[in-house]
Amino acid sequence: MILIQRNSIDQFDRIFRINFINSLPGFKSTNLCGTVSKKNITNLSIFNSVVHLGANPPLMGMVVRPLSIARHSLENILETGHFTINHVNDKIFKKAHQTSAKYPPEISEFKETGLKEVFSDRIKAPYVKEAVIRIGLEFKEKIEIKSNESILLVGEIMEVFLPKKVLKSDGFIDIASAQTITSSGLDAYYKVSKLSRLSYAKTTRSLTENNIF
Amino acid sequence: MILIQRNSIDQFDRIFRINFINSLPGFKSTNLCGTVSKKNITNLSIFNSVVHLGANPPLMGMVVRPLSIARHSLENILETGHFTINHVNDKIFKKAHQTSAKYPPEISEFKETGLKEVFSDRIKAPYVKEAVIRIGLEFKEKIEIKSNESILLVGEIMEVFLPKKVLKSDGFIDIASAQTITSSGLDAYYKVSKLSRLSYAKTTRSLTENNIF
Repeated sequence: MILIQRNSIDQFDRIFRINFINSLPGFKSTNLCGTVSKKNITNLSIFNSVVHLGANPPLMGMVVRPLSIARHSLENILETGHFTINHVNDKIFKKAHQTSAKYPPEISEFKETGLKEVFSDRIKAPYVKEAVIRIGLEFKEKIEIKSNESILLVGEIMEVFLPKKVLKSDGFIDIASAQTITSSGLDAYYKVSKLSRLSYAKTTRSLTENNIF
Repeated sequence: MILIQRNSIDQFDRIFRINFINSLPGFKSTNLCGTVSKKNITNLSIFNSVVHLGANPPLMGMVVRPLSIARHSLENILETGHFTINHVNDKIFKKAHQTSAKYPPEISEFKETGLKEVFSDRIKAPYVKEAVIRIGLEFKEKIEIKSNESILLVGEIMEVFLPKKVLKSDGFIDIASAQTITSSGLDAYYKVSKLSRLSYAKTTRSLTENNIF
């Protein structure tokens, strides 16, 4: 075991520090966020910061750095009030990663990467056809994080597309069977394999394995 | 493909809805948060909502539901100004899950689960000895999410313990080799296997694989 203290972190080379700090939270959700601009140009951007916020109402959060390329997504969401979240799977992760390149706003990442856009009647934002699990959201709240001027964007879940077979009898979605992948740091991608699904923890009984898995 | 619209989600049975909505963000970070109370009782709680916020200054966020058992962690963090984040690995995930049981504040989850606490000189919060990657943080900001009264807690990274061999030459941490696991929903745990680490995406060149992986 080595100990790395704060003064060392501050002295790291910029890229070394970014790689290091981005590895610390653990594995990350890996999603493509679809939006459309006022000029009707679609935008697609990879995000590894989507988190669950609550089930009732159904809410998701997403951290956006306002000076990053992700600001195009943010601008579009604030203008249209809608965005989509599309799970990245092992067939599309390279195309998904390519969306992080700094394309100008007049160019659609769909066209550049070859991922196909598909629309529903209710959400004014494109879904990714190749994504197995797709979520349509309505913009709800923009929260400034004062410590570094990043933004937590809150969206309310309006609709979900998924294959019937991955939805289990208790509401659990088998996202591993939908080939959803995970990531670490800024650029490392991983497949998953099932360990166990555990029972609700109580102080008065031992855990058991849940076979709805 | 099936389409599940918002009115159906609102009509789901409560447990079905919680399982469903918790599965939607994708794979989650899986960490144990260590804290200590004013009365010097240690607390340990599993969190699947830790996210990267920024590298300079090095910041992490964590979503806390104030009415959940996690409020003990929140109270302790606000009182002491410190907390630890410890990666959950495949050897300790059952003990980690058990920390979500509703133990009263006078009982330490370390004692109940058998996980061992270990302290550093600088952080007033216990680390988990069995965790391979451990991060010590100082409380920075408490942000209320108005949409559902949950809280985003922001911490500044003060120190990191990790095995030398998992820290790569460019700052990337090989958390898969440290046996860090991921999770989905409320209770499903997964091991990971490497797919690829990709180059920085540019509009003018194709992606290549990074062999520092």
